[in-house]
Amino acid sequence: MGRKKVLITGAAGRIGQVLREGLKDRYDLRLMYHRTVLEVAEGEEVVLGSVADMAAIEAAVDGVDAVVHMAGDPSTNASWESVLEKNIQGVYCTYEACRKKGVKRVIFASTNHVTGFYEQDGVYTTPELPERPDSLYGVSKAFGEDLGRYYVDEHGLEVICLRIGSFQPDSAVIERQGDRILSTWLSHRDCVQLVWRGIEADVRFGIYYGISANTRAYWDIQSARQELGYAPEDDAERLA
Amino acid sequence: MGRKKVLITGAAGRIGQVLREGLKDRYDLRLMYHRTVLEVAEGEEVVLGSVADMAAIEAAVDGVDAVVHMAGDPSTNASWESVLEKNIQGVYCTYEACRKKGVKRVIFASTNHVTGFYEQDGVYTTPELPERPDSLYGVSKAFGEDLGRYYVDEHGLEVICLRIGSFQPDSAVIERQGDRILSTWLSHRDCVQLVWRGIEADVRFGIYYGISANTRAYWDIQSARQELGYAPEDDAERLA
Repeated sequence: MGRKKVLITGAAGRIGQVLREGLKDRYDLRLMYHRTVLEVAEGEEVVLGSVADMAAIEAAVDGVDAVVHMAGDPSTNASWESVLEKNIQGVYCTYEACRKKGVKRVIFASTNHVTGFYEQDGVYTTPELPERPDSLYGVSKAFGEDLGRYYVDEHGLEVICLRIGSFQPDSAVIERQGDRILSTWLSHRDCVQLVWRGIEADVRFGIYYGISANTRAYWDIQSARQELGYAPEDDAERLA
Repeated sequence: MGRKKVLITGAAGRIGQVLREGLKDRYDLRLMYHRTVLEVAEGEEVVLGSVADMAAIEAAVDGVDAVVHMAGDPSTNASWESVLEKNIQGVYCTYEACRKKGVKRVIFASTNHVTGFYEQDGVYTTPELPERPDSLYGVSKAFGEDLGRYYVDEHGLEVICLRIGSFQPDSAVIERQGDRILSTWLSHRDCVQLVWRGIEADVRFGIYYGISANTRAYWDIQSARQELGYAPEDDAERLA
């Protein structure tokens, strides 16, 4: 049995670049870039286009086993026009393209901002609580989760939603962020693990917070441990 | 203290027409029609335009105390393009227009199809369960609920989401629908009551199933009774 082929959308993004490096030994990668193609490494396939363009994303997903959907506007300050196009239209086209092309599984980059108002209220949060988004960006990601559930129930797609915490390009920036990151940190290697566990797990649909094993966490990752087998190796406490 | 002024969007729709009649003695009504203006009655204000057109909806909400947002594509078979424009863009523009114009409250016509897959699985459903939409239409209404919660938490709007059950133009059609309607029926007068209770209740945000006091109900309306004071007068059993 050959290796799985996995498409990463948003491959030029901060997380996309880390996943490209972290998943290349495990999977054959196809990378989708929106505008700028980074240097192509041996063994990689590359496609160019917007996930909000149905023809482009259909071509991109054709023949892969799973899609790691990282494309979208990642800013909590994103405008309505931007999240409508890049996040809402983008995730619809991605799921729909997977349905049309028979792709089995999507790992959807959701966000902790889907439930950001619990955090503001100091509420310990499990993935089962009703959504309380703190931004139009958060609302657009809640939409991606709900649409994913629909594609699972109605069309048999498999969708793993990861509510990613604080993903930093370098631990050197952590000091600037205050104490929040001690609760919300997702290390690079834990992020890579969480994504491949999501690809491999025998789960049809799930929503999981994506953080390391932080001592001060206020988002529950028990279901990620139990259902996905996620075993984070890092704890933000060592940064304190 | 004068009477409240209430805007009904989607006034030409099946529910809109019933609300127009049922709310006119309680409120001063402004009716928003998309394309076709029905005969104008004395005391009514009328505006024409799409809720997905920001300028049109801003003008429509200006000066009202509450908006009863019934506009949108009501079909469970609606296409993505249609729900994206009429339901997703439409509800965004409605909330945003209310924020800009200082309108206090929105009654949002959601749907039982936000949780339609629980029904298919035979699960008794409360409003707190995670969304399981059964259609792109249902996903678009889940979006309207989530966006509403965001506008409540972030901008102080008040949003009452009503997951309307089976609203029939005439009880004569009921025989054709099989037994489902014995569980899911919302009579005209109960619909009218639920909406004005939603306008008057001291609640900042809530999600409620909109059905009559049906003996065979599988959607929970306890919170509508307790939080809104909703006291339905009908039971579909008398139709059996």
